[in-house]
Amino acid sequence: MAANSNYTPLLVVTMGDPAGIGPEIIIKALSGGDLDNTARLLVVGITSMLRETAFSLNLPVKIHAVTPQTIHRLPRHSPGTMFVLDVETPAGLSLTPGTVSGATGTIAAACIEQSARLCLNQEADALVTAPISKHALHLAGLKETAHTERLQTLSKTDSVEMAFVSDDLRVVLATRHIPLSSITRALTAARVLEALRAAHHLGILLDKQEPAIGLCGVNPHAGEEGMMGNEEETVLIPAIELAHREGLRVSGPLPPDTAFIQTAREEFDVVVALYHDQGLIPFKMLSFGRGAQITLGLPFVRTSVDHGVALDIAGRGVAEPGSLVTAVRLAAACIRR
Amino acid sequence: MAANSNYTPLLVVTMGDPAGIGPEIIIKALSGGDLDNTARLLVVGITSMLRETAFSLNLPVKIHAVTPQTIHRLPRHSPGTMFVLDVETPAGLSLTPGTVSGATGTIAAACIEQSARLCLNQEADALVTAPISKHALHLAGLKETAHTERLQTLSKTDSVEMAFVSDDLRVVLATRHIPLSSITRALTAARVLEALRAAHHLGILLDKQEPAIGLCGVNPHAGEEGMMGNEEETVLIPAIELAHREGLRVSGPLPPDTAFIQTAREEFDVVVALYHDQGLIPFKMLSFGRGAQITLGLPFVRTSVDHGVALDIAGRGVAEPGSLVTAVRLAAACIRR
Repeated sequence: MAANSNYTPLLVVTMGDPAGIGPEIIIKALSGGDLDNTARLLVVGITSMLRETAFSLNLPVKIHAVTPQTIHRLPRHSPGTMFVLDVETPAGLSLTPGTVSGATGTIAAACIEQSARLCLNQEADALVTAPISKHALHLAGLKETAHTERLQTLSKTDSVEMAFVSDDLRVVLATRHIPLSSITRALTAARVLEALRAAHHLGILLDKQEPAIGLCGVNPHAGEEGMMGNEEETVLIPAIELAHREGLRVSGPLPPDTAFIQTAREEFDVVVALYHDQGLIPFKMLSFGRGAQITLGLPFVRTSVDHGVALDIAGRGVAEPGSLVTAVRLAAACIRR
Repeated sequence: MAANSNYTPLLVVTMGDPAGIGPEIIIKALSGGDLDNTARLLVVGITSMLRETAFSLNLPVKIHAVTPQTIHRLPRHSPGTMFVLDVETPAGLSLTPGTVSGATGTIAAACIEQSARLCLNQEADALVTAPISKHALHLAGLKETAHTERLQTLSKTDSVEMAFVSDDLRVVLATRHIPLSSITRALTAARVLEALRAAHHLGILLDKQEPAIGLCGVNPHAGEEGMMGNEEETVLIPAIELAHREGLRVSGPLPPDTAFIQTAREEFDVVVALYHDQGLIPFKMLSFGRGAQITLGLPFVRTSVDHGVALDIAGRGVAEPGSLVTAVRLAAACIRR
């Protein structure tokens, strides 16, 4: 879309799995006052379900169904008003909050696909995803049961990076949803270098001039000079040297157990963690319910909530919209830069 | 020692490596007002070095050298007074703060050995250790370069458990200083059961009647039903079943990335982490400089600071004694129960 200073970015928000808390947090986020008018918002989902959710939550929100042809005329976001582009409702759907099925997975998958198409066709600027159920996507017959992999296929993107952003911490994961026993095999200098580049890119997106990047070690005490594992020497230090040649500001390998204490968080703009829980344990401790995920490397900006479908509380009206609010704000901020 | 209500426990505090921050934090902890008179304290180290440290810190503390024969007559702790049992000073020692050597390692090793003997001979009730340098112990010719392993040898103890305690979190590690790539091989149901028993024992020591124990998963999202690793099914769930048969209150396997968020910390008295950084990343984020380590399974209570020798700041007078204070208090509390 044109880099016009008068242009207001259009963000697409998927409804997520309708049996999860996606519809509820969308209604809460878009009816509340936490989102300003710096972006235009389009929800891709099912209008009738969202209206039912708003009714059961007793929240005053005007929900307008729109067509693909009218998307470009959407106004800036105004709390209490929502615009929804419908996906097809599977025949004979009977929805029970908290119970996913092939039908709920089909809806979640359709929301992702429709939204990704809008971004790929440059009819929208960024994608914000509400939570889906891997199990439901599997029941719906999808080969890719996670957002990231599905979006890679739809956009024909080989390699993406997963990062988590909050006011407290920015962390990029060098490996993602793999067993602990596979981590060291998956770590190569090339893989870590890609993650360091993504961390640099994320820092720039978040308005740091020369982002200071901290790279965690793999082993206890970062291996303590090879006494407890040698990936620091064989993989991480070579990756840091390659990154330095590209002009990146990288420090490490850091002893993992002090890489996230207060003083380290003040020192680094972005931290690269080598595996899921090395990054997500500290991130969720600091920012649970207030952080967002961002996928780097797709042809468009994509952010996401940092939590799951929360089937245990779906339909009870107690879900917190904080992470979705952060995800929308983060997407809008990235588009502006 | 006799379980006499008038009896005041005697805690032995090792000086640690003299080139590290051990002497400084001991002077600060014992001259300051953070330790009350509920225990008697004996420092095992080198009187002249401790006096020099006190002098350079300009802290008013009376340091009395004692002999093995007079230990049993030590009074309750009183801030500003210290009793030191000397170990031998290696010939020709030249001490530079921040620079460890075979000679500093020899002193650190002698402090550990002398202190352990006092505990094993029941002349003292508990051991509190200041930090040592693995490298210096190696230079001093020791096979065991860590406190725990050295104390196991000295006390002929097969299996011990390492735990970390602060006001914010109590965590037991099921594996310790091993490479990340070895973790899943080291985890057996028997190993995890031992850690769960240690967690239960720790909870009792810390005055919980029926401690609620949380067991972390190994893999992201605790494996998500085998989709990302199967140690949850093959190792952890069998270990939990064995623990339940023994009457232990264990929940899990918990998704590791939410096992340490606020609500989980309120739910569990003790958490069992399966590897060093899974437990130490959250522990240090919450309690860095204010937590202590405790070794379970030795014939005596042993606590320790949760930090290293900090060679980078040794001799500069800026080291914080908070963790040593916690370690002394924790040892005293465990003895009383």
